[in-house]
Amino acid sequence: MNIPSKLIEDAVTEISRLPGIGKKTALRLALHLLKQSEVHTEALTLALTRMREEVQYCKICHNISDDEHCSICKSHRRDHGVICVVEDIRDVLAIENTDQYQGLYHVLGGVISPIQGIGPEELTIESLIERVSTDSEEPVKEVIMALSGTMEGDTTSFYLAKRLHEKGIKVSTIARGIPVGGELEYTDEITLGRSIMTRINYSSE
Amino acid sequence: MNIPSKLIEDAVTEISRLPGIGKKTALRLALHLLKQSEVHTEALTLALTRMREEVQYCKICHNISDDEHCSICKSHRRDHGVICVVEDIRDVLAIENTDQYQGLYHVLGGVISPIQGIGPEELTIESLIERVSTDSEEPVKEVIMALSGTMEGDTTSFYLAKRLHEKGIKVSTIARGIPVGGELEYTDEITLGRSIMTRINYSSE
Repeated sequence: MNIPSKLIEDAVTEISRLPGIGKKTALRLALHLLKQSEVHTEALTLALTRMREEVQYCKICHNISDDEHCSICKSHRRDHGVICVVEDIRDVLAIENTDQYQGLYHVLGGVISPIQGIGPEELTIESLIERVSTDSEEPVKEVIMALSGTMEGDTTSFYLAKRLHEKGIKVSTIARGIPVGGELEYTDEITLGRSIMTRINYSSE
Repeated sequence: MNIPSKLIEDAVTEISRLPGIGKKTALRLALHLLKQSEVHTEALTLALTRMREEVQYCKICHNISDDEHCSICKSHRRDHGVICVVEDIRDVLAIENTDQYQGLYHVLGGVISPIQGIGPEELTIESLIERVSTDSEEPVKEVIMALSGTMEGDTTSFYLAKRLHEKGIKVSTIARGIPVGGELEYTDEITLGRSIMTRINYSSE
């Protein structure tokens, strides 16, 4: 593509660095901004700059936050005795969207992956161990693992479970099984096998 | 979606104003920028700001340009006697990519569309009439219409053809027909009918 303006070419190059956006889409976005009034571009760049410069990470759970402590860790309505361990900020949003969980979170920042050179020290594991070890009014009773069902996720779960058991903390993991609405015959054997082994008893009443 | 940071929420709102980008994609892009080093966000916002503030439009053909006159209008290698009329800057890029055209352009900025309230005076039509009327070393011999095959495109072409014929200028339009590689049986009747009526003679030699 031979864009007759160095300025637009630079903008296209920068936009197409974003994930999932190619040169053609980047050009469409750049030309869209050019067609719109200047205030739109100003609002966009200001929002991006402020976000990048001012966003903080919660000192307790490493979730994104506008303050030192995030709104979930600060909330008195939530159960401070349960911590859900997730890989990423997006997982916090996904679980929050279910409206089913009332405890706190701990964002690991990734999973243990020897292939990618990510060891336990690259993650916020020590900070989690510290959280469960600290004496407080509401001590942590349970840590729920909500990591991906991949080998790296499982490795991380096992590692964390070992470390947390040493501290006498109850550790659980979210259920792996057939998705709601999913059909048995299209479920892979490993998932199906696991869902039988980890079956849930109907209460007799 | 309940994003626990007003800063990220603002950024997501602004990003999702772009065409074809929804809230989920916007959040993915925002979190991507947060993960990357700060210089990436700075480079992106600077490129967008500079583009929006500094890009100019060629005073002759209304194409995007870093100067008062675009590189195509300034070029001595191009045929200044032929002008190709297009709707949009993207059409210039598309035609330039074919490497088949050596004349100049004229960017209308849209097509006549009574439904959308776009009349001839909203477009750069007067500037085109002026271009073909001005005495210069290389007078304009031909104007090629390269507008969309829609009703609005055709209306605009007819209107322009009438105005240009009054000035004694030869007017042509790009061929409508079966795309290269296209099969006859899947071509709609109007296109097929037109391609028969506007058939091209093989030269006898």
